[in-house]
Amino acid sequence: MKALILLAAGCEEMEAVIVMDTLRRGGVEVVAAGLAEGPLTASRGVVITPDIALDALENAKDFDVLILPGGLPGTEALREDPRVRDLLLAYTGDATRRVAAVCAAPTVLDGLGLLEGLQFTCYPGLKARCAGGGTWVDAAVVEDGNLITSQGPGTSFAFALRILERLAGGDAAGEVAAGMLVGRF
Amino acid sequence: MKALILLAAGCEEMEAVIVMDTLRRGGVEVVAAGLAEGPLTASRGVVITPDIALDALENAKDFDVLILPGGLPGTEALREDPRVRDLLLAYTGDATRRVAAVCAAPTVLDGLGLLEGLQFTCYPGLKARCAGGGTWVDAAVVEDGNLITSQGPGTSFAFALRILERLAGGDAAGEVAAGMLVGRF
Repeated sequence: MKALILLAAGCEEMEAVIVMDTLRRGGVEVVAAGLAEGPLTASRGVVITPDIALDALENAKDFDVLILPGGLPGTEALREDPRVRDLLLAYTGDATRRVAAVCAAPTVLDGLGLLEGLQFTCYPGLKARCAGGGTWVDAAVVEDGNLITSQGPGTSFAFALRILERLAGGDAAGEVAAGMLVGRF
Repeated sequence: MKALILLAAGCEEMEAVIVMDTLRRGGVEVVAAGLAEGPLTASRGVVITPDIALDALENAKDFDVLILPGGLPGTEALREDPRVRDLLLAYTGDATRRVAAVCAAPTVLDGLGLLEGLQFTCYPGLKARCAGGGTWVDAAVVEDGNLITSQGPGTSFAFALRILERLAGGDAAGEVAAGMLVGRF
């Protein structure tokens, strides 16, 4: 299974790194594609070099899941990028693929009308920004159809493990959670 | 308040990034010093560029807390580095400063005899590696004197918030936890 995560300058580094690390522990091939080439500075100053620049990635529409971390101003960069819009439309229009978004990132889907009629969640302080006809649910992770959404850094392990469960199964996700000591306390 | 975190190739990227991000949210000045110069590849392939190389850092002994993330082979690199040993001896010998270590990193302190007579924790599968006279406690975070230890990725928010509480107070840590949605579910 293969996951594509999009990284912009100002993305939330915990949200990005927790999902990349967790999925790789579970055997998923994760490609972190930067909106621009080279290293980026995330929202709290951590400097991360994506695996590849989005422009250099062939078959960007052929992953099993497209993942958007939150963070500001990273989410604004995702929102304003026509390549991201095209990818979101392609992934949400294909029932064999999934989209996963956390924290501020569901607002990008909302702006494209992609939450209409769906249950979703996002960072609680941003739910008023999602007025496009979806139903906000106050849960760590919300799934509806092929959409997986979550609330923020503190729910990122649950978000990552839910994606892993859908890609690799509950046993794999349970093993990874145990190895990371998630839920031990 | 100022925190120094040491980053080696093969460090656990979630453990490193969660503590850096959380402390910065709480207003702590965090310096991530690399054992070598330039970008490093963490344990699950995330490429992080530290703020500075350890050799270029003046006043490395003048921070309020010295933090060691876990991960393999990053922890082995910490163990074998004489600069890390010198820093650990300096920080543990100064009652005005703290040392914080998570996951595999407490084994580095154990190898230097620095856990003797103290309560501590580490990744549960590694407790047999800490036979130097400390008492292993099965808790997410253990404090004894100026030492703060924790178990792994799944306890890293609690670890980071405990360090923040000691540096900036319980109100600051509570505000940061709420903003990150830690403990919301």
